[in-house]
Amino acid sequence: MKKYVIGVDVGGTNIKLGLINSLGKILSRSTLITCNCSQTKNKLIDSLAEAIKILLQNKGVNIDSVLGIGVGLPGLINYEQGIVTSLTNISGWRNVPLMSLLQKKINIPVYIDNDVNLIALGEWKFGAGKGYNNLLCMTLGTGVGSGIILNGELYRGEGFAAGELGHMPLNEKGPSCNCSGFGCFECYVGSSVLVAKAAKIFKNKNIKLEDVYDLANGGNIRAVQFWEETAAHVGNGLVGVVNLLNPRLIVIGGGISKSYKLMQKVIEDIVKKRAMKIQANMVKIVRAKLGDDAGLIGAQVLISASLEKRKK
Amino acid sequence: MKKYVIGVDVGGTNIKLGLINSLGKILSRSTLITCNCSQTKNKLIDSLAEAIKILLQNKGVNIDSVLGIGVGLPGLINYEQGIVTSLTNISGWRNVPLMSLLQKKINIPVYIDNDVNLIALGEWKFGAGKGYNNLLCMTLGTGVGSGIILNGELYRGEGFAAGELGHMPLNEKGPSCNCSGFGCFECYVGSSVLVAKAAKIFKNKNIKLEDVYDLANGGNIRAVQFWEETAAHVGNGLVGVVNLLNPRLIVIGGGISKSYKLMQKVIEDIVKKRAMKIQANMVKIVRAKLGDDAGLIGAQVLISASLEKRKK
Repeated sequence: MKKYVIGVDVGGTNIKLGLINSLGKILSRSTLITCNCSQTKNKLIDSLAEAIKILLQNKGVNIDSVLGIGVGLPGLINYEQGIVTSLTNISGWRNVPLMSLLQKKINIPVYIDNDVNLIALGEWKFGAGKGYNNLLCMTLGTGVGSGIILNGELYRGEGFAAGELGHMPLNEKGPSCNCSGFGCFECYVGSSVLVAKAAKIFKNKNIKLEDVYDLANGGNIRAVQFWEETAAHVGNGLVGVVNLLNPRLIVIGGGISKSYKLMQKVIEDIVKKRAMKIQANMVKIVRAKLGDDAGLIGAQVLISASLEKRKK
Repeated sequence: MKKYVIGVDVGGTNIKLGLINSLGKILSRSTLITCNCSQTKNKLIDSLAEAIKILLQNKGVNIDSVLGIGVGLPGLINYEQGIVTSLTNISGWRNVPLMSLLQKKINIPVYIDNDVNLIALGEWKFGAGKGYNNLLCMTLGTGVGSGIILNGELYRGEGFAAGELGHMPLNEKGPSCNCSGFGCFECYVGSSVLVAKAAKIFKNKNIKLEDVYDLANGGNIRAVQFWEETAAHVGNGLVGVVNLLNPRLIVIGGGISKSYKLMQKVIEDIVKKRAMKIQANMVKIVRAKLGDDAGLIGAQVLISASLEKRKK
């Protein structure tokens, strides 16, 4: 019986692989370095196929017992056609039919999707979102994104570009954003923005968000305020989504979510106070559970859901 | 063969009824006055049943050829259980099992839903949204709402409260809103806000939005500016939705949409400029087509979709 999947999580610096069972448990892992140059695109696909084979061999798993390979990539992914339309921070990937290219090399069905979508799928079925039908899984990091589960299904949008929570504007006349918008959510809570803000407040060019986290935990008032201000923006950003989509759950993940405990109360208070009553009373806000493994585990969910859909 | 539906559109002042064929055409109409007092709730249901019978008799339509009655109401409606949870501006309607009450009186299957959802359904199948799978139908009036069609299905939210586009904040420190939020979209483009703004600008307490519309069409610069400023807020409000949901279409309806031509260019420019490239290039913004009939016609879509779903 086919019961395993291979999860692949492509990042800007490295590629994580995992052999995952039907319960969403990662049985074995490996890592590749992401070669960030366009010439090596085919090489990368070769290495990926090779790494998958080794991962299976190491665990003595036969190729026939693998349902599929699920690949999460940071960019715009045409999930239906299996094409990487473009990647963020990895050059040379434009309209690459990754699904068919990889499938040819390894003869296992391949599924590809946006990395945040895979994180959302993972948290939904095996993490903080278990049992919910309408939820938003937000990732707070350099970028701010989200995966949206509505009516028990991942919502990808007309052109697979839905979920850009980081680019919902918080202020009409806010700072200009890389995306060409103004006052985007990400302009207030993206980690590079926060690092720059912290450097100013603490007059230290080399400060990291971990330092501000430690300072706050040690009782430093400016550091506590720093996280509360960040939390206020997060809360304000969520108010709009909560009113518009009336979700049952919001899962907060990503790097900055490590400071979740420092932000939790303010986020919850703002949503309860500023969102509409029915929506506010109904929504639960929680921290993500699967950490950096969410994307790998999400591959299992992506593949199960895709197979389920094909049956229909 | 059952081929007709009865559409019922409940408003604060009156209730519109229509006999609708399978092509979404209204064959016959009637109107009731909405009695705005709690004692008359049962009376109202009696009158409604009576009015429906008369509507059918007048057209010589037998009760057996009616698929169902679709009722749109301004408030929070539990579509699945057929219960009116609460109504806006009509008192005395709390947790009323309207579906079963009306069904008992008239022996035709009854379906109830939020009025803006019915408008969205009507525009989707028979109006400006024909053929689209992912669209948002916004109503601009005293209130600003929306109905959201995602993956070819109306999205209602966990508690049937989704679509509150008017209460997505445009500014974190904006004016306080009735909903308890701050800087809500509706605070900038709701018609009562606009009337008050016009009264100030034109130093005329009795000015109506129609007057400002006429002034703008006559070339009055302040009136033209008035609609351009309104349009800028509408555009800014849509940017967030476009980035988050990546819809293919946005349909703009409701009273203020009469000024759509005066606002169209600014709305489109702002969305093209401020939304993310992929989402912006993909989304079309159009004016609603069915006018005040959208809700009645939407009853046909509600009933067809509900019957289709039950079959599955």
